[in-house]
Amino acid sequence: MTPDEFRRAGHELIDLIADYLDHGVEAHSVLDRVAPGDVRAMLPEHPPAEPEPWEAVRSDIDRVVLPTITHWQHPNWFAYFPANVTYSSVLGELLSAGLGVQGMSWVTSPACTEIETLMLDWMHELLGLPARYRSTSERGGGVIQGSASEAVLVAILAARWKATAGAVNEIGDTTRLVAYTTSQAHSSIEKGLRIAGIGSDRMRIIDHDEQFAMRPDALAAAIEADTQGGLIPFFVCSTHGSTSSLAFDPTPEIAAVCAGSGVWLHVDGAMAGIAALEPELRWVNQGLERADSYCTNAHKWMGVNFDCSLFWTADRTALLGALSILPEYLRSAAAETGAAIDYRDWQIPLGRRFRALKLWFNLRLDGVGTAQGRIRRDVELAQEFAAWVAADDRFELVAPHPLNLVCLRIVGDDDAPTDELIGRINTAGEFHVTRTVLDGRSALRVSIGAVNTDRSAVQALWQALTT
Amino acid sequence: MTPDEFRRAGHELIDLIADYLDHGVEAHSVLDRVAPGDVRAMLPEHPPAEPEPWEAVRSDIDRVVLPTITHWQHPNWFAYFPANVTYSSVLGELLSAGLGVQGMSWVTSPACTEIETLMLDWMHELLGLPARYRSTSERGGGVIQGSASEAVLVAILAARWKATAGAVNEIGDTTRLVAYTTSQAHSSIEKGLRIAGIGSDRMRIIDHDEQFAMRPDALAAAIEADTQGGLIPFFVCSTHGSTSSLAFDPTPEIAAVCAGSGVWLHVDGAMAGIAALEPELRWVNQGLERADSYCTNAHKWMGVNFDCSLFWTADRTALLGALSILPEYLRSAAAETGAAIDYRDWQIPLGRRFRALKLWFNLRLDGVGTAQGRIRRDVELAQEFAAWVAADDRFELVAPHPLNLVCLRIVGDDDAPTDELIGRINTAGEFHVTRTVLDGRSALRVSIGAVNTDRSAVQALWQALTT
Repeated sequence: MTPDEFRRAGHELIDLIADYLDHGVEAHSVLDRVAPGDVRAMLPEHPPAEPEPWEAVRSDIDRVVLPTITHWQHPNWFAYFPANVTYSSVLGELLSAGLGVQGMSWVTSPACTEIETLMLDWMHELLGLPARYRSTSERGGGVIQGSASEAVLVAILAARWKATAGAVNEIGDTTRLVAYTTSQAHSSIEKGLRIAGIGSDRMRIIDHDEQFAMRPDALAAAIEADTQGGLIPFFVCSTHGSTSSLAFDPTPEIAAVCAGSGVWLHVDGAMAGIAALEPELRWVNQGLERADSYCTNAHKWMGVNFDCSLFWTADRTALLGALSILPEYLRSAAAETGAAIDYRDWQIPLGRRFRALKLWFNLRLDGVGTAQGRIRRDVELAQEFAAWVAADDRFELVAPHPLNLVCLRIVGDDDAPTDELIGRINTAGEFHVTRTVLDGRSALRVSIGAVNTDRSAVQALWQALTT
Repeated sequence: MTPDEFRRAGHELIDLIADYLDHGVEAHSVLDRVAPGDVRAMLPEHPPAEPEPWEAVRSDIDRVVLPTITHWQHPNWFAYFPANVTYSSVLGELLSAGLGVQGMSWVTSPACTEIETLMLDWMHELLGLPARYRSTSERGGGVIQGSASEAVLVAILAARWKATAGAVNEIGDTTRLVAYTTSQAHSSIEKGLRIAGIGSDRMRIIDHDEQFAMRPDALAAAIEADTQGGLIPFFVCSTHGSTSSLAFDPTPEIAAVCAGSGVWLHVDGAMAGIAALEPELRWVNQGLERADSYCTNAHKWMGVNFDCSLFWTADRTALLGALSILPEYLRSAAAETGAAIDYRDWQIPLGRRFRALKLWFNLRLDGVGTAQGRIRRDVELAQEFAAWVAADDRFELVAPHPLNLVCLRIVGDDDAPTDELIGRINTAGEFHVTRTVLDGRSALRVSIGAVNTDRSAVQALWQALTT
């Protein structure tokens, strides 16, 4: 492909994306009708022997790709979580791809590291986070992770290092370490623990209350019992906005329990934490001033395209202890003086893209006001939707709904009607919602927050649910 | 940012990237002269209160970013490894960013999963890999990982699961598991083992021969000793092209040792494995027909922009056993019938981008012939460069150089002259090379393979090294 072919194709692709995000997505059903194997059957089994023209690829975007993806940017997207893409962040990703720099060390691209550190400090300020996480603080700092899964894994590894005074790096014995969370925590907590060698036998599922929030007294009792049993409580995950129902664990009380036992407290605010961009919603930060690490995703509600998970720790020494390995070919004078950050030691992989560009572009070109306005709008729409549910005898709300997620079910002892309703909506394909289970009962999740979703889309969903 | 502003800015950015990759990068030194803190000092400490125009961001690309990144696409790039960016792959990344789909499950975007599986099969064919890795084989399959670090970590986790018959997921006891590699293996092996709870006490550094390749007899002896000692040998990493010198471990012989002991054999061909695109270099695949997993990066020499690490396993059952966790909100009918792949269970994170697009675009728009030609050119240039070194009494070659990496040093007992030479070259900033240590002696690595590197650039480097 020549530079001129790239210019022409690139301009076309920019226009395609502009059209797609500017309501073009609405030409598609949110969920297109494909069965496993359908996509592959549309494509050649073998790679082309010769280069193809851009027109052939361009035409396959329309013929193959757009009809067989699930449209996360669709206004009728009420499933999982908002995965918004803003124009500004797409430009940042594009520049990152074009420059192709590696940010594994400061020296391998200084701007990649320093703009990232600054962006984490900007976000720290915009979210109103405690001083202990700022890069200019004595022991804290932030980094972009690929996902909240990776963020919780590095938190677990830092906690593991701290609880063993670093010995785990040599002896690898994790058998006495115990972690604590609730059944409402994200699956990435169990996955991260498993990866780190903490089996499910050492993961305590702490009771939750009727609002699906962890019971601090149950946590304290479990930690006490394990300590008495000769085990080492090392990690607690408190969730700020659970996946199933956006439940908030009471971090201030949990932190008080952890403080007494030296346990690392990670707060997972993957989806909901970003609500703190809106000052009135800053209650989502409750207790962070006593946590050891925190994560919220710019790549969900905020609109920075995936991947851009924001991770802060108040104890970077533990993180570096857990993850630093320095072979000869990665040494640099800048790092050895301590003047520079080498972000490879803050994450699982070695290589890293210049992801800070998309956050920088987003904050400058859209401004935080855009995200704030969308967050306010979505919370208002969710409250309105919840009021409709509450006023309808056929339905019941099954969890608190302080933000943009509403969980409901059809009243009665039987789950079948709710399951059938979810199946009917998703099979029709006009709207997409997610099923979950709360305290053993089926529930329909309505997550509001795609950029193109407006009041009429929420009304249409309610219409579909009720007819 | 409005759709029209995006169109205008996007077109400008496409042109900027076209210019940059089409020799515009040569306006910059490969290594720009910045000290830690310089980049941050060029930027405001606080986020903007109001949106800024594109022109402000555009101007900061020139003012801040381009002067303070390390230019991996520069023709004088001889450091680390080639991290090529092709126009075609930049377009694929752009489309992935614009669509913003999540490929964690088949159902969350069928095309994202199915095109990825097909691309791994296309690459399987183009690299001439053994049948056992193909997605259509009984137990194998491929997936895109973010990096070779993540690939080796999932291999370790699959091996850990297999060696414990899955018990590690519950009991988390890794204390008897032992892994084997050489001192030449990449730092990600030790990092992956550490993450998985295999401490350095359980990582055996097997002797290598004078060509920096693992000694299979030493491996066999170590495995035997550990077995006798009541430990469980579970993982061997054989390197195809080590980072320091591109040394190749003898995988056929290593596989024979592993076969007798049930140990998982992972082959790390991160940089060099992609050479198999060129049929004459297919010897780099030696022994893969008996390995359990393999990784090579499309995002290095081949030219697909980072991140695009190709990982295959011949035992997807172990991978799924190690990494599957299925909460209610991730269930889908397609996956439960076994008809669809859910790639979230093949990797560390849950979320995933539509990375297959950049590989698909690259193979169609550039064709494999482009990468083949570049690989041939780079191997020829490296051989020519090595001949210059061999013919100069002041220098010695310190490792075999069958591909695109040449390691040399200044003759004599002292490392100082070599270290000084490396320091002088990198400080001058016209060229960038990497220092390594081979058998305790400093060596200068010359890695050839940036798209814009040509014979004159290699000649100029040699001139700089010798004057």
